[in-house]
Amino acid sequence: MLPDHIQIFVTGGTFDKEYNELTGELFFKSTHLPDMLRLGRCRLDLSVETLMMIDSLEMTDQGRQLILERCRQCQSSRILITHGTDSMENTAAVLGQGIQDKTIVLTGAMVPYQFGSSDGMFNLGTALAFVQALPPGVFVAMNGRCFPWHSVRKNREIGVFELVDQSNSNAD
Amino acid sequence: MLPDHIQIFVTGGTFDKEYNELTGELFFKSTHLPDMLRLGRCRLDLSVETLMMIDSLEMTDQGRQLILERCRQCQSSRILITHGTDSMENTAAVLGQGIQDKTIVLTGAMVPYQFGSSDGMFNLGTALAFVQALPPGVFVAMNGRCFPWHSVRKNREIGVFELVDQSNSNAD
Amino acid sequence: MLPDHIQIFVTGGTFDKEYNELTGELFFKSTHLPDMLRLGRCRLDLSVETLMMIDSLEMTDQGRQLILERCRQCQSSRILITHGTDSMENTAAVLGQGIQDKTIVLTGAMVPYQFGSSDGMFNLGTALAFVQALPPGVFVAMNGRCFPWHSVRKNREIGVFELVDQSNSNAD
Amino acid sequence: MLPDHIQIFVTGGTFDKEYNELTGELFFKSTHLPDMLRLGRCRLDLSVETLMMIDSLEMTDQGRQLILERCRQCQSSRILITHGTDSMENTAAVLGQGIQDKTIVLTGAMVPYQFGSSDGMFNLGTALAFVQALPPGVFVAMNGRCFPWHSVRKNREIGVFELVDQSNSNAD
Repeated sequence: MLPDHIQIFVTGGTFDKEYNELTGELFFKSTHLPDMLRLGRCRLDLSVETLMMIDSLEMTDQGRQLILERCRQCQSSRILITHGTDSMENTAAVLGQGIQDKTIVLTGAMVPYQFGSSDGMFNLGTALAFVQALPPGVFVAMNGRCFPWHSVRKNREIGVFELVDQSNSNAD
Repeated sequence: MLPDHIQIFVTGGTFDKEYNELTGELFFKSTHLPDMLRLGRCRLDLSVETLMMIDSLEMTDQGRQLILERCRQCQSSRILITHGTDSMENTAAVLGQGIQDKTIVLTGAMVPYQFGSSDGMFNLGTALAFVQALPPGVFVAMNGRCFPWHSVRKNREIGVFELVDQSNSNAD
Repeated sequence: MLPDHIQIFVTGGTFDKEYNELTGELFFKSTHLPDMLRLGRCRLDLSVETLMMIDSLEMTDQGRQLILERCRQCQSSRILITHGTDSMENTAAVLGQGIQDKTIVLTGAMVPYQFGSSDGMFNLGTALAFVQALPPGVFVAMNGRCFPWHSVRKNREIGVFELVDQSNSNAD
Repeated sequence: MLPDHIQIFVTGGTFDKEYNELTGELFFKSTHLPDMLRLGRCRLDLSVETLMMIDSLEMTDQGRQLILERCRQCQSSRILITHGTDSMENTAAVLGQGIQDKTIVLTGAMVPYQFGSSDGMFNLGTALAFVQALPPGVFVAMNGRCFPWHSVRKNREIGVFELVDQSNSNAD
C-alpha cells in the first residue's frame, strides 16, 4: 500500500463528453482529467488511468466487475473514480459490497468540462478531499456532499443526489 | 452548535478580484461565492457572510482579530474562510492559536473567478469537503492538499503551498 | 427604408443550441443573440426577432419562403440572418433569387455559444460589419470571409465554407 | 500589392494583457491573435506581426511613426492594427494624415482575451470584415461600428467609441 498515493480511475461520463463540431453530436475522445488537475493547480501524488470511456447508461455488469477487480488489485488504498451520474449509485453498490479496506470515492459532472463545467472542477475538488480525509468505505461525492454507497440515489427530475433513508434500505 | 451547518466567511483575495474595463485595473466589488456555489451545484446547508473585501497583503492584525472573534462567536462548528493567498498562513496561525474546538479551513485562488478561475472552483470544492470531514483544528486547503496551520507556507517563487518541516517550526 | 437600422432575424442553428444537463442532449430554448451583442459591446441600432428556432437540417421550403417574405416586408435595407451551417447555402440561394435591393448577410457558428463559442462571436462581428459595408446582395459570412450566395458551399468533411467556381455554377 | 492578403500589425493593448498569478498584476507576454484567429475558424490569407507590445497610454510619437512607416512599406493594401483603446484615435489620426492609398482598420478590446474577452473576438471579426469591404482610408472599428479616423473619440466615462461632429472638429 502507498499511504499517500491516490489512484484515479476514469470511466467516462459527462465529465469527458466533447462536442463534435462537424456532426453536432456529443462524443468521447480522451479524458480531460489531467487538464483539470493542472488547472486546479493540484499537487497531490496521484496516477490517472482510463478503464473505459462510456456514458454510464451503457455501463454493464461486466464493466462494473472490471472496475471492482481493478480497485482490488490497485496498490493504492485511496481511489477516486470518475463516472457518469446516471448509474453511479449502481457501481458504488457493487464496489461497496465487494471492498471494505479501501477509501473509494465516485464523482461525476452534470455539464461537460469542455462546455465550461464548473461543477466538474468543484466535484473533482470535493472528491479528492474526501478520498484523503475519510476512513475506508465506498462513497459518492456530488453536490458538495458525501454519501455512503448504500444511502444515495440520483433524483433524476432535478439532477441532484439525495440521501436515501437507511431504515428503508435495510428493509430491502 | 449546528452539527451540519457550514459558515463561510469571505475576506476577499484573488477569488473575488474583478477587472475594471474602464481603468484596466483589478478591484473588489462583491463576492462571487454564491455564484460559485450555484455553478458547483452545491446543496450543503451553509451561510455566506463577507467580513471584509481586501487583498491579503493588506490584512492587518486588527483584521485577523476580527476574523478570530467572528469564528469564536459563530454558532457553527465548521467554518470555511476565503482569503488571499499571500498571508493566508498568518491568519491561519492566529486562528490556530486561538481556537481548538472547531474545524476551520482557509482557502483561496491563484486566478480570479471572473477570469475563468478553475483553481477557485477546485479549491472551494476541496475546502468544503475537508471542513466536513476533518476533526477540530485549523487547516489550509490549497493545491488539492490540506495543511495543518502550523506546518504550511506559500512558496512565492512558484505560487504553491508546501508542508513546512515541523521539527524546525518547533524550534522557533 | 431606415438607412442605418439593421434587422437581425434568428432562425436557430448551432449558435443557439444548449445543453440539457438532465438528459445530456442538445436542444433549443431561446436565442443568445442579445447576450452576444451585449458582450461584444455592440452599439449599433438594430432589432432582433426570432423567426424560428431549428437545426438547419430541418429547414423546409416553407421555412425558407417565410424568411424570404419577412426579408421583403422588413423596413430595414440591411438584414443579418443567423442560420444553421448545414443548409445555409440553400437559404441564401432562395433569398438571392428573390431579393435584389437589400444587403442580406447569413452567418452561423460551428460551436454553440453556450460552450464558449468563440467562432460565434467572431462570425457575428464579421456579419455585422459586412452587412453595413456591402452593397445590395445576398452573402454568406463564415470563416472571416464573405461569399456571394451563388458561389458558396460548406465543405462538410472539414467544416469550412468555400468559394464555388462560378463557371461551373453558370453551367447548372 | 497583394490584392487579397491582409497584414495584421499587433501593438499590444487590452487584447493581449495577461494575468500574472504570482504577482497578481496584468502584463504583456506575447500576442493571442493567432489563437483568436484559430478559434474564429478564420480562413483568410493573412500575416500577423508584432510591432510592439504596450499599453496604449505608453504609445509615443516615435511609436506612431514606426507604425506609419511599417504601414507604408507593407506589401498588402489591407492592414488591420490591434491597439489599446485609450489612444487609438491618436494613432489613427497619424495614419490618416500620412496614408491615402490603403485600407487600414484599427481595433482593440475592453476586456483581455485571456479573461474570456468576448468583445475581443467580436471586434476582431468586425475589423477583418471592414478591412476587406471598405475602400482606402483609415478607420477605427469598435462597438460594431466603423468610424473614419477624423471623426472618432473614446468616451472614457462609459468606455464606448463615439462619432465626433465633423463641423466641430473642423473648427478646432
